[in-house]
Amino acid sequence: MSSSRLFDDLVAKLQVMPGIGPVSATRIAYQLLDRKRDQGLKMAESITAALSHISRCPSCGNYTDEEGQECVLCASPLRRHSKLLCVVEYPADVEAIEKTQAFTGRYFVLHGRLSPIDGVGPAELNFPKLEQLMQDDELEEVILAVSQTVEGDATAQYLGLLCRKYRVKATRIASGMPIGGELEHIDSHTLISSLAYRREL
Amino acid sequence: MSSSRLFDDLVAKLQVMPGIGPVSATRIAYQLLDRKRDQGLKMAESITAALSHISRCPSCGNYTDEEGQECVLCASPLRRHSKLLCVVEYPADVEAIEKTQAFTGRYFVLHGRLSPIDGVGPAELNFPKLEQLMQDDELEEVILAVSQTVEGDATAQYLGLLCRKYRVKATRIASGMPIGGELEHIDSHTLISSLAYRREL
Repeated sequence: MSSSRLFDDLVAKLQVMPGIGPVSATRIAYQLLDRKRDQGLKMAESITAALSHISRCPSCGNYTDEEGQECVLCASPLRRHSKLLCVVEYPADVEAIEKTQAFTGRYFVLHGRLSPIDGVGPAELNFPKLEQLMQDDELEEVILAVSQTVEGDATAQYLGLLCRKYRVKATRIASGMPIGGELEHIDSHTLISSLAYRREL
Repeated sequence: MSSSRLFDDLVAKLQVMPGIGPVSATRIAYQLLDRKRDQGLKMAESITAALSHISRCPSCGNYTDEEGQECVLCASPLRRHSKLLCVVEYPADVEAIEKTQAFTGRYFVLHGRLSPIDGVGPAELNFPKLEQLMQDDELEEVILAVSQTVEGDATAQYLGLLCRKYRVKATRIASGMPIGGELEHIDSHTLISSLAYRREL
């Protein structure tokens, strides 16, 4: 409790951000008030604009600035006619792959992964739209770039079955030792996977 | 560069907060967009309200919710007539002392400390108002609760001279070993100060 109700409210609300607890929130609040009022107000405007306007691309589910409009990736003629579709869990994953500049096909964002325990089934994800794509577009390959977790595995398995149904080749990105990794520092699960999916030289 | 201009702007603007770099800002942006749109919008409202309305108490300089209105501490009858005045650098320092519940006098917030190198002189701080208080109110003691830094020392020295001019007793809060501290882990500057200001038992 400080001498200002607005201040206490600000500190409480800042904690909605991941990694921001009461101590950081208080520090941020004082800094904004003491030294960065104008920049802080501009930040609030940005937050409002982004959270009010950013919506999902009707083709791939990635973020787009205007509702109903295709995202810049889907709008690119190069990508639009690609026969390669990369399925990811979140928009952040698209950015991660784009940063590598190693993929020039199309994306599809599920916005989650199968997790019955959290009530996330095929209907909660973008699956119907994905099925439609497999049916309508003549895809050559669906690359499953989902996480290496139990839920990621379940999602990949389910999507694999879907691909078989529509006679589309399905692949999953490799799991194994990270580049630069040394055996003695790798966890056993990763090592087991590396051994199981060893490839011929 | 992501597929959304609003997203990129959001990530840039979030970095105005202390301790938030590009990686944390991106994580915060995705979390707000994916899962916390409503809470994020409410946070933006709080930021705007706080930064637009919180101003300085005309009596003590602490934060107050309405411009021109005294803060809750100054408005308290118990404090208003206290002959003890505690001078601090920032509103955060008031909260720190209030949390101890060890002081029931009045406060005065300088909003900084003397630092000629940064162009902060007596005129930039709240000094004229403080002089007026020393002249008008019959203060018994001014407690200087400023930081133990070079600038804090300069501020304390300057304020000590002011107090002498108005014949008010000036004290500075003790420096020395923190409670729970062990000698072998204390830095030399603190130890020197602890030795110099040793008190008789």
